[in-house]
Amino acid sequence: MDKEEIKTLLKNVKTGKTGIDDALRVLRSLPYVDLGEAKIDTHRDLRRGFPEVILCQGKSIEQIKRIVSGLSPDTKFIMATKADKAAFRAIKRIRADAVYYERAKIILVGKKRRKKSDKTILVLTAGTSDVPIAEEAAVTAEIMGNSVERIYDIGVAGVHRLFGNKDKLLGANVIVVVAGMEGALASIIGGLVQCPVISVPTSVGYGANFEGLAALLSMLNCCAPGTVTVNIDNGFGAGYFASLINHMGEEE
Amino acid sequence: MDKEEIKTLLKNVKTGKTGIDDALRVLRSLPYVDLGEAKIDTHRDLRRGFPEVILCQGKSIEQIKRIVSGLSPDTKFIMATKADKAAFRAIKRIRADAVYYERAKIILVGKKRRKKSDKTILVLTAGTSDVPIAEEAAVTAEIMGNSVERIYDIGVAGVHRLFGNKDKLLGANVIVVVAGMEGALASIIGGLVQCPVISVPTSVGYGANFEGLAALLSMLNCCAPGTVTVNIDNGFGAGYFASLINHMGEEE
Amino acid sequence: MDKEEIKTLLKNVKTGKTGIDDALRVLRSLPYVDLGEAKIDTHRDLRRGFPEVILCQGKSIEQIKRIVSGLSPDTKFIMATKADKAAFRAIKRIRADAVYYERAKIILVGKKRRKKSDKTILVLTAGTSDVPIAEEAAVTAEIMGNSVERIYDIGVAGVHRLFGNKDKLLGANVIVVVAGMEGALASIIGGLVQCPVISVPTSVGYGANFEGLAALLSMLNCCAPGTVTVNIDNGFGAGYFASLINHMGEEE
Amino acid sequence: MDKEEIKTLLKNVKTGKTGIDDALRVLRSLPYVDLGEAKIDTHRDLRRGFPEVILCQGKSIEQIKRIVSGLSPDTKFIMATKADKAAFRAIKRIRADAVYYERAKIILVGKKRRKKSDKTILVLTAGTSDVPIAEEAAVTAEIMGNSVERIYDIGVAGVHRLFGNKDKLLGANVIVVVAGMEGALASIIGGLVQCPVISVPTSVGYGANFEGLAALLSMLNCCAPGTVTVNIDNGFGAGYFASLINHMGEEE
Amino acid sequence: MDKEEIKTLLKNVKTGKTGIDDALRVLRSLPYVDLGEAKIDTHRDLRRGFPEVILCQGKSIEQIKRIVSGLSPDTKFIMATKADKAAFRAIKRIRADAVYYERAKIILVGKKRRKKSDKTILVLTAGTSDVPIAEEAAVTAEIMGNSVERIYDIGVAGVHRLFGNKDKLLGANVIVVVAGMEGALASIIGGLVQCPVISVPTSVGYGANFEGLAALLSMLNCCAPGTVTVNIDNGFGAGYFASLINHMGEEE
Amino acid sequence: MDKEEIKTLLKNVKTGKTGIDDALRVLRSLPYVDLGEAKIDTHRDLRRGFPEVILCQGKSIEQIKRIVSGLSPDTKFIMATKADKAAFRAIKRIRADAVYYERAKIILVGKKRRKKSDKTILVLTAGTSDVPIAEEAAVTAEIMGNSVERIYDIGVAGVHRLFGNKDKLLGANVIVVVAGMEGALASIIGGLVQCPVISVPTSVGYGANFEGLAALLSMLNCCAPGTVTVNIDNGFGAGYFASLINHMGEEE
Amino acid sequence: MDKEEIKTLLKNVKTGKTGIDDALRVLRSLPYVDLGEAKIDTHRDLRRGFPEVILCQGKSIEQIKRIVSGLSPDTKFIMATKADKAAFRAIKRIRADAVYYERAKIILVGKKRRKKSDKTILVLTAGTSDVPIAEEAAVTAEIMGNSVERIYDIGVAGVHRLFGNKDKLLGANVIVVVAGMEGALASIIGGLVQCPVISVPTSVGYGANFEGLAALLSMLNCCAPGTVTVNIDNGFGAGYFASLINHMGEEE
Amino acid sequence: MDKEEIKTLLKNVKTGKTGIDDALRVLRSLPYVDLGEAKIDTHRDLRRGFPEVILCQGKSIEQIKRIVSGLSPDTKFIMATKADKAAFRAIKRIRADAVYYERAKIILVGKKRRKKSDKTILVLTAGTSDVPIAEEAAVTAEIMGNSVERIYDIGVAGVHRLFGNKDKLLGANVIVVVAGMEGALASIIGGLVQCPVISVPTSVGYGANFEGLAALLSMLNCCAPGTVTVNIDNGFGAGYFASLINHMGEEE
Repeated sequence: MDKEEIKTLLKNVKTGKTGIDDALRVLRSLPYVDLGEAKIDTHRDLRRGFPEVILCQGKSIEQIKRIVSGLSPDTKFIMATKADKAAFRAIKRIRADAVYYERAKIILVGKKRRKKSDKTILVLTAGTSDVPIAEEAAVTAEIMGNSVERIYDIGVAGVHRLFGNKDKLLGANVIVVVAGMEGALASIIGGLVQCPVISVPTSVGYGANFEGLAALLSMLNCCAPGTVTVNIDNGFGAGYFASLINHMGEEE
Repeated sequence: MDKEEIKTLLKNVKTGKTGIDDALRVLRSLPYVDLGEAKIDTHRDLRRGFPEVILCQGKSIEQIKRIVSGLSPDTKFIMATKADKAAFRAIKRIRADAVYYERAKIILVGKKRRKKSDKTILVLTAGTSDVPIAEEAAVTAEIMGNSVERIYDIGVAGVHRLFGNKDKLLGANVIVVVAGMEGALASIIGGLVQCPVISVPTSVGYGANFEGLAALLSMLNCCAPGTVTVNIDNGFGAGYFASLINHMGEEE
Repeated sequence: MDKEEIKTLLKNVKTGKTGIDDALRVLRSLPYVDLGEAKIDTHRDLRRGFPEVILCQGKSIEQIKRIVSGLSPDTKFIMATKADKAAFRAIKRIRADAVYYERAKIILVGKKRRKKSDKTILVLTAGTSDVPIAEEAAVTAEIMGNSVERIYDIGVAGVHRLFGNKDKLLGANVIVVVAGMEGALASIIGGLVQCPVISVPTSVGYGANFEGLAALLSMLNCCAPGTVTVNIDNGFGAGYFASLINHMGEEE
Repeated sequence: MDKEEIKTLLKNVKTGKTGIDDALRVLRSLPYVDLGEAKIDTHRDLRRGFPEVILCQGKSIEQIKRIVSGLSPDTKFIMATKADKAAFRAIKRIRADAVYYERAKIILVGKKRRKKSDKTILVLTAGTSDVPIAEEAAVTAEIMGNSVERIYDIGVAGVHRLFGNKDKLLGANVIVVVAGMEGALASIIGGLVQCPVISVPTSVGYGANFEGLAALLSMLNCCAPGTVTVNIDNGFGAGYFASLINHMGEEE
Repeated sequence: MDKEEIKTLLKNVKTGKTGIDDALRVLRSLPYVDLGEAKIDTHRDLRRGFPEVILCQGKSIEQIKRIVSGLSPDTKFIMATKADKAAFRAIKRIRADAVYYERAKIILVGKKRRKKSDKTILVLTAGTSDVPIAEEAAVTAEIMGNSVERIYDIGVAGVHRLFGNKDKLLGANVIVVVAGMEGALASIIGGLVQCPVISVPTSVGYGANFEGLAALLSMLNCCAPGTVTVNIDNGFGAGYFASLINHMGEEE
Repeated sequence: MDKEEIKTLLKNVKTGKTGIDDALRVLRSLPYVDLGEAKIDTHRDLRRGFPEVILCQGKSIEQIKRIVSGLSPDTKFIMATKADKAAFRAIKRIRADAVYYERAKIILVGKKRRKKSDKTILVLTAGTSDVPIAEEAAVTAEIMGNSVERIYDIGVAGVHRLFGNKDKLLGANVIVVVAGMEGALASIIGGLVQCPVISVPTSVGYGANFEGLAALLSMLNCCAPGTVTVNIDNGFGAGYFASLINHMGEEE
Repeated sequence: MDKEEIKTLLKNVKTGKTGIDDALRVLRSLPYVDLGEAKIDTHRDLRRGFPEVILCQGKSIEQIKRIVSGLSPDTKFIMATKADKAAFRAIKRIRADAVYYERAKIILVGKKRRKKSDKTILVLTAGTSDVPIAEEAAVTAEIMGNSVERIYDIGVAGVHRLFGNKDKLLGANVIVVVAGMEGALASIIGGLVQCPVISVPTSVGYGANFEGLAALLSMLNCCAPGTVTVNIDNGFGAGYFASLINHMGEEE
Repeated sequence: MDKEEIKTLLKNVKTGKTGIDDALRVLRSLPYVDLGEAKIDTHRDLRRGFPEVILCQGKSIEQIKRIVSGLSPDTKFIMATKADKAAFRAIKRIRADAVYYERAKIILVGKKRRKKSDKTILVLTAGTSDVPIAEEAAVTAEIMGNSVERIYDIGVAGVHRLFGNKDKLLGANVIVVVAGMEGALASIIGGLVQCPVISVPTSVGYGANFEGLAALLSMLNCCAPGTVTVNIDNGFGAGYFASLINHMGEEE
């Protein structure tokens, strides 16, 4: 609900078109769908430029079903992340047009946004085990209307694998680096390129990796400026942020 | 055993009504039921205003059964928390009048306490995944004789969802905020309302959430005075404390 | 700015008494004093029932001076916490009526609130080293218009020291337990009394105390319901919360 | 191999009874049974007063079987800890005289040591969930020839449960306190009694308990002198140490 | 050294203009100034779009002096961060044109970059104590050629202070949120705006803040997408990244 | 106050020698000296066999002075630990007979207890830097009436230094091992001797020692049974416990 | 691609044998096999002296299969670590000559390297549970062409078990110490021998072992110089490094 | 004391040349100098190939003086690490021939060992602030008779600085990588070279660096085999280990 809408509302109050109590009610009941346990922020798209996304992890299948069922059947766009196959099957039964990106663990009802430019987000992984989180980032960015390139498994232990991809590195508009273990790939990329770099630590590794802590601390301490970090395994957050900045400078 | 009882005892000793050795025995054997592995604190209601509650988590089904069986069949009130269905089935076989609050994971034998006032405890959650812990708090408070309102899933990412509920927020006598991830809802509520706020961090989240540590530290560092914190996932403790202060000022 | 004020505003818009743009401005410019680096929340008293308090720790003397100077000279009430002598001297030069509670490290300009009842907040410490934080809690509660009793150094290693004070324990309306090291006093008090207990872990101790972590975890895991916890060394927060609930049930 | 044995050996070398190379070999081949993956320290009883004990946790059933099979069939005494039923069944097939203490998860082949005195080790738990670790301590101490008393579930939230057991507390020669959650029972007992107290933190609890860390830190920071701590869930270590000091002062 | 330069070099080798050994030497000696203990990356501007910056923290005054002295006197641009007054005095003696941004602890030799657009970076702080780190971010962004707006001390405990600044919030192209304690401001801003948000946790706070850990974890777990995080107290990194994305879409 | 005293009191109540109110008062006022900020547990010697000891660390000089001044001038025994020279000078002015054990940082007013036996407590350190904590243990044990032997700097890196001291090792009745860094000495001693071993981790070390955490964890995980652990740098606690068990078996 | 190859390439460019664009392409396309999700570093052997090894942990069976299938069928050497039986069966179906070292969890396709010397790597474990990680180290070293001796279960609690193996200890060229719990064996070996010692902490243990943290910190703080540490449970890394230094001094 | 010496001793016992008690004494009194608080391991050179080194950090000046004074004046070689100027002045007064390596904080009395080969240890740092720890490693290695090359400040943010030094990298026999912050340099070097790499994390950095923890975890998780790690800031340990393996293959 932006300034103009409030202005109109106030005008209507002035002219008597809207009663005072009605105005109060409107101000109170901002647009969201209340499902009891969950409130769908249908206002999100307007306010933040992208609809609310359902994080499946930590929710029971029952809860996910109630949320999707609770949405109006003509809701054109539903996206769910960290969704396993059971979550997909549950949603599929309600919305037959649901699609499952298995490696990314993303469920999509509706269409990807249209690309406005050919500026590219490049998603890199250090290893093969980091691919699911990278896919979460890549698919998110694609859904949000971006060109995405992927280069997987170019980790530090064979850094020459980077060189064959140097053009892609230098040509990217935004880079997402997904790495577990010691997360050093973020530092190397951060030191080479000019574009913004978003680091995603993953929980890939063992021992003193401590479920991604090693990569997280490494990335936070990255001595190359131009890099930022998101939560461990937060591919969605990285893809979302990458999309935000990849769209910057576009006429809206 | 309060001062008056001791006084009476001493009087009886003086008048010879009670022998010295008997007095000693009374002083020693405070009222609890000894079941070997467990001692039921039957004195708790007298001393603390509410009977002992069985925490099922960490106990074997065998242990839970022994405890419930060990109680006199005319024990009117038994409450058990963090109880799964197996625990419920086990208790149900001993006490047919047992009721199971499934979302709250609470088992109740006996009646809820009678409400003495219409002062309300408001239980909020940031997300849908926090609901089970919120229910543990809400049901506990209801059992202890309080009016409870619930508003679930009004988390920080869509803070406008709070506004439609502003009357409830301002009308509450005590607020319980249940939140995982970064736990920021506690700070926002704490900065808006005048009544006491009890924050319950949950283990909902992933990565650098570290099983609720992020929400816990966030809530402990809350810069809005008027908020306190309980253990991660301790819905029962929050509901109990909320009840304690909601009953303050009532004639007893 | 509560519902009634908005209603009045809307009425004035309707009757033309207030122009639309003026109404917008009012809604926007909520009352606070903007000092650049600091914004004094002069609206706090109205909204939350107590004015904003200056946390001196982490602020330079220059910043503290700018904040106090920036306040209107007829501001009747200023409170500052975790203030060392240098902070006091700086404020004293601006506001000659400033008073310093040295053990509590609290500076007060203006009067304590009037007590409305004789319900007592009891502040306990486990040891002598915990006294400064306890005083922070006690003085805060006194300033907020409460009767405060203190019992210091009754720690667990000589638990019989509690017994001579049993009447005070049972007579208190709210108890604040301040303890460092293993923080076990909170559990013992929590198991004995019926009233709400607020635990304040302190950073007193050494070695595996880890700057108060031991006491904090101990208090958070307290198995006696009816206890809640605030941040390590947060005497102010405990005193504030204790005051909030001590005033409950009072007619306002 | 003590001083006297070396002296004898040297005498035999001097008199020619033992050749130099033989002497070297004896000095080299101290008594243990080499099973490849495991070396049974058959010398342990001589050197440390009690035979080596098999910690089953972390060993495969295959490894446990190889160790027990590898021992000479006339080994009179075998003790295994943290043993599940599968481990017991495996050992039982090799040594039919094996006995399983289920709650304690201890397997015993052979006889308990004879008691030399009636000095008592008292094993306490704060809660019912702490019983398995307490049993590990108690059964260990019984096997090592001690009188053991148990009082279970006398935790801090109902501290009066201690009083009916005051005679046992004051009569004990050594006390083992087993507690999870905040571990405060150790501090209370430590402040009351004169005899040595051994604290065993357990991993019982949830949330900010962090798998026993809260209880461990609490016990390490215990402000009552006369208490020491062992590893989380190390009932065996506590029972062993309790036995060591309970036997002190006995003629050997 | 980019592709075109290599091509030219190879052409020169082909035509004999450059000898093979010379080509090798060029390829080897990439442009940096070697000062023994330090190597000034004079190639940085070309490669990454901005010259190397000297982090003074952790370096001795001697080291800082050697680095600045080692640079050619016609180096037009030198920037140093986390510099105290002693560092400034040392540099000032070598480069008389050095300027000190005291609150930001930044030293600048040379001119700020020219602004190419009026897109604004908005820097917010939760409290007054967070200002030094916010200034580090703001001054960095200004030096890099950006319009910067500042709103300080609008923390969560008085969230209405945000509203008078709503236009600035919604008008910003990039937002940097600087907050210590529980860092919740990042979540609130993240939930309100559409533009990218960069969170900077600070070490402001005490107790269970653990030197900024609470704010860091809070920000990493931020449930509002569109926010990323940098290291605790890394104002420079945030300002640098904000500048990178604020310049996106500009013709270069 | 033991059973017999209560019996006498009750008898006196019965015979009317003691009034009921008087009896209540006696039961309430257990013997301690109340100095406001501090309560001296004068009952400690009776109850626990040794008077209360003043931990100077964390107390201001003013507090220490108030405590010592508050004690009756005919208090025969005062012991203070972790006392620096300023604390000593302050106490010396009040009690001219105070003695300072500088390496141990212990102040003693009064006499050491008489030795009842020649059983020896052996105090070992891994390194020279561990000596102050070792002295704290050794002097505590000497004050409590024990024969103490010291062997310092026999750390693991030169384990043969143990052998020349083998007789002392095998002859000791109790061993205290004081070690920082990796704390491995405790494991080695624990594996060699038959007597109880008390491990004291120290904060000696750097880097991943994390202020004694490495040694603490190492000692807690000691795989040799017969060893227990106290808090990091808690020499007093180790000396006290060592004394307790060294006196076991003595006729009292 | 070393200096000589570049020289040749440049010569060919000069003589026109190689076109400029071709030269560029060669420089870009360093030899690796790109399988999309994985890139096999076929250049590794040349560059680092040993081919890339597949870490199975964290990879799905599908991913492992794709990697092995993607390799040319005449790849002579494939090694995979932390491989369970399912991984082995999957690889076996593709490469029938695959061999499984079950205790070591290593899969090998191809031949072990030929030993060049009889210098021995000695692999020790503290306990039986450490054997799998020790085998990972030992088998790795054997595959890389080393003589390996094993002595298992000679932990600290029975340190005399070392002596019968003194010759092996002193005769070894490199020692790998594998230990969980408190990891003290590394310190003891480190203090006895002259050769380099590589410590491998394992996650064997429970409670305050914290998944290997205790052993890791212990080994990092080892006060005996001549020891280094690898990640918890990283047997492969230890075996690899041991092989590297065991081959030093060999003519290549 | 090796096997041959024991043999000779036994022979002498046999022939009567040495009495049994004398033999015992010899076996007991292994060679070290006992200074009470410190025991100088004069046997270290024989046993481990290098004399004991004095770690000054954590020792008082008095202790250091006592140790150096306690050594026989004809001790030819004394080395002390982490020594500040005060320590140097104290030692200089006792041993006028003492030399101070200020950057390395190493004191040396006596001569560096003679180099036996020209195999080089290469010491790298990521930044300028890491130089002191690098010097500790480099000077240690030089004292132990090695050729040492240094390349400082070639950190990840300007990785091209490595290339001009590629020959040195490939020519080194052992590489020591010293890095703070995110420690990624170790991974890059580890992925490029064939020789063993020893990583030294430093405490250089701020915020989520947590005193070197970030670099330590990063290095432990290094995915390039052929690298090992020592304690944070342990330059000496790295230099010592580098020397050990650099001398391998030399005839002794």
